[in-house]
Amino acid sequence: MAAIAARREFFETMVIADYDLARAAKAVPDGDPRFVAAAVDASDSAAIEALITEHRVTHVLNAVDPRFVLPIFGAAQSAGVDYLDMAMSLSAPHPTHPYEQVGTALGAEQFAAGEAWRDAGRLALVGMGVEPGLSDVFARYAADHLFSEIDEIGIRDGANLVVTGDDGEPIFAPSFSIWTTIEECLNPPVVFESDRGWFTTAPFSEPEIFEFPDGIGPVECVNVEHEEVLLIPRWVPAKRVTFKYGLGSEFIGVLRTLHQLGLDRTAPVRVKGVEVSPRDVVAACLPDPATLGDRMTGKTCAGTWVKGTGTDGEPREVYLYHVVDNAETMAGYGAQAVVWQTAINPVVALELLANGTWSGTGVLGPEAFDAVPFLDLLTAYGSPWGLRDSTA
Amino acid sequence: MAAIAARREFFETMVIADYDLARAAKAVPDGDPRFVAAAVDASDSAAIEALITEHRVTHVLNAVDPRFVLPIFGAAQSAGVDYLDMAMSLSAPHPTHPYEQVGTALGAEQFAAGEAWRDAGRLALVGMGVEPGLSDVFARYAADHLFSEIDEIGIRDGANLVVTGDDGEPIFAPSFSIWTTIEECLNPPVVFESDRGWFTTAPFSEPEIFEFPDGIGPVECVNVEHEEVLLIPRWVPAKRVTFKYGLGSEFIGVLRTLHQLGLDRTAPVRVKGVEVSPRDVVAACLPDPATLGDRMTGKTCAGTWVKGTGTDGEPREVYLYHVVDNAETMAGYGAQAVVWQTAINPVVALELLANGTWSGTGVLGPEAFDAVPFLDLLTAYGSPWGLRDSTA
Repeated sequence: MAAIAARREFFETMVIADYDLARAAKAVPDGDPRFVAAAVDASDSAAIEALITEHRVTHVLNAVDPRFVLPIFGAAQSAGVDYLDMAMSLSAPHPTHPYEQVGTALGAEQFAAGEAWRDAGRLALVGMGVEPGLSDVFARYAADHLFSEIDEIGIRDGANLVVTGDDGEPIFAPSFSIWTTIEECLNPPVVFESDRGWFTTAPFSEPEIFEFPDGIGPVECVNVEHEEVLLIPRWVPAKRVTFKYGLGSEFIGVLRTLHQLGLDRTAPVRVKGVEVSPRDVVAACLPDPATLGDRMTGKTCAGTWVKGTGTDGEPREVYLYHVVDNAETMAGYGAQAVVWQTAINPVVALELLANGTWSGTGVLGPEAFDAVPFLDLLTAYGSPWGLRDSTA
Repeated sequence: MAAIAARREFFETMVIADYDLARAAKAVPDGDPRFVAAAVDASDSAAIEALITEHRVTHVLNAVDPRFVLPIFGAAQSAGVDYLDMAMSLSAPHPTHPYEQVGTALGAEQFAAGEAWRDAGRLALVGMGVEPGLSDVFARYAADHLFSEIDEIGIRDGANLVVTGDDGEPIFAPSFSIWTTIEECLNPPVVFESDRGWFTTAPFSEPEIFEFPDGIGPVECVNVEHEEVLLIPRWVPAKRVTFKYGLGSEFIGVLRTLHQLGLDRTAPVRVKGVEVSPRDVVAACLPDPATLGDRMTGKTCAGTWVKGTGTDGEPREVYLYHVVDNAETMAGYGAQAVVWQTAINPVVALELLANGTWSGTGVLGPEAFDAVPFLDLLTAYGSPWGLRDSTA
């Protein structure tokens, strides 16, 4: 994010904060005096608020694991500044019908604070990464410019990324936080239907083969719990909203095994006198996804598939998408594709907020704003989007 | 083991020692004054030696994880008493050719002490459980009574055990120490051939479907590192010796995933300020195999398949086996089948040593002794063995 923002003029100062000051300092672009590194504990609201005050921060951009959404969101609210994140507060399954009914929904605790944010005249722009984020912008664009009525909006995420080990053979190395991947893939996936509201299914439900563009090709996708399903129906009318992730059968197998062995659990277990969370151990055994770029090849695709009635009254089916090639992001930014694709979207959003193109108060998703300036600015950043029209 | 030994007369006192005294006390049979519970750290040779002296112990029977073989073996040697175990000292892979050549073999450190044990006039009977143990006894029996020349001895282990969860659905719950199962299944399997000596292959090599008796039926078996392959060729002439374990494809998948994610590693990783071994975390997440008996159904089979020339000079092929039904061991002893089958064999061996039927000095495997009295006493304990003759 810092490397992308460093090429733009819209801000005076950006404070890069991490639990580990050295890690924050490493993210500071060389020789750019606008960047400052700081140490902060993301679970400590008071410390975050002090940092906001110290640097006279106007916007807090939360880029850490979703377990830290609430303390950071709360610190921004207390400090009276605007807030953005790329993942929303965590869900809890329904106590008796986990695979049928929603318990605590993703973001529920944030939306509950909506009125307080509105009254304070401040904005919390939630789910503003690539997915959620750009995928929601695509949904709004489709509703405003391509469709008169929407039957289904399905976010579809797939990639052909391969990570090779020292011996040149492919290795198992997720390109995104394994903690979050386990969370979203093993939680009951949520689906929205206009006549039924939000409901859940069993993990890995409704497998389908989705054809991804730009040479990625067909990937098996399954339902996954994701913010778009909670966000889109609040602003974009659609009969059905889903999110399917192209995990592929190998990764699904790994996740099933972790679950079967109880290694996905976050509650600590006692091991020889110490207490650890099994999921944290899994994460500690795998390489840091951000460090994999130079051993990775391939492309990643985020996008929104929409089916319904076009503005001309005829049936229409499109896929709006954004493909990122790891070779290009490594060459241009030294960042791997998935990290870079997640990072560029909140920077674009920050610039739109900074120049007043986007404005609002309360707790809002990306689809609450006009999609066109966002997509134009993304293209101006050098990263265009695509539209595949597969209307029969 | 205590529950089985309690029905026999061959000993005066049995000291059941565990790191956790309460766990040792639980194993003491009700109302039998011959049993004593004690606390001891199996990694502490001096503490074990003190316990040997305190109770005037004549035989130490090691029944803990193989990581503790050397301290217990060493304590018995220092104390000048006889020793038995059910698994031998651990191997280390060959530094440059792990899947072709043997590095440090299973039991190598124990066999290296053979002369010292012989000189001291003491016996270390190593690998005296069910596998290794009974399987080695079967090999000796076949060589002495059924064959004039042996082409191959293949230990084959399979089961149809199922563990059900609270909802009555089958759950993943290994019936034997997961620590040891990971160790033996992910280490390079060792194979013996008379013209080549010992060599290794890649994990899960040479899959075959083996037909197990007594209704268990066909199970996919793969090469696994096991003591028999190191023990049998020292005393029983055979052109080839293998060990294949009927893991089944689901379990092989779980083990492959654990390896792929680095969760099989024993070296500690740092997780939020504490150090833990990933393999210990996996073990901590699974139920204790010894507690599964009342949720388990099915049978387990250990046995030795032998092919060669019979004593009549004709081609011969047999499978000598021992099947245990979980329902029977639970009803008779309150112990699950795999635990019970592992326990009965060293008790039989102890009785043969106590009454002088078996005697010897040095570091010896079960196949160094006459098989007949062992098999007869096993039958007298109420647990007969079987012979399937599949000579074409």
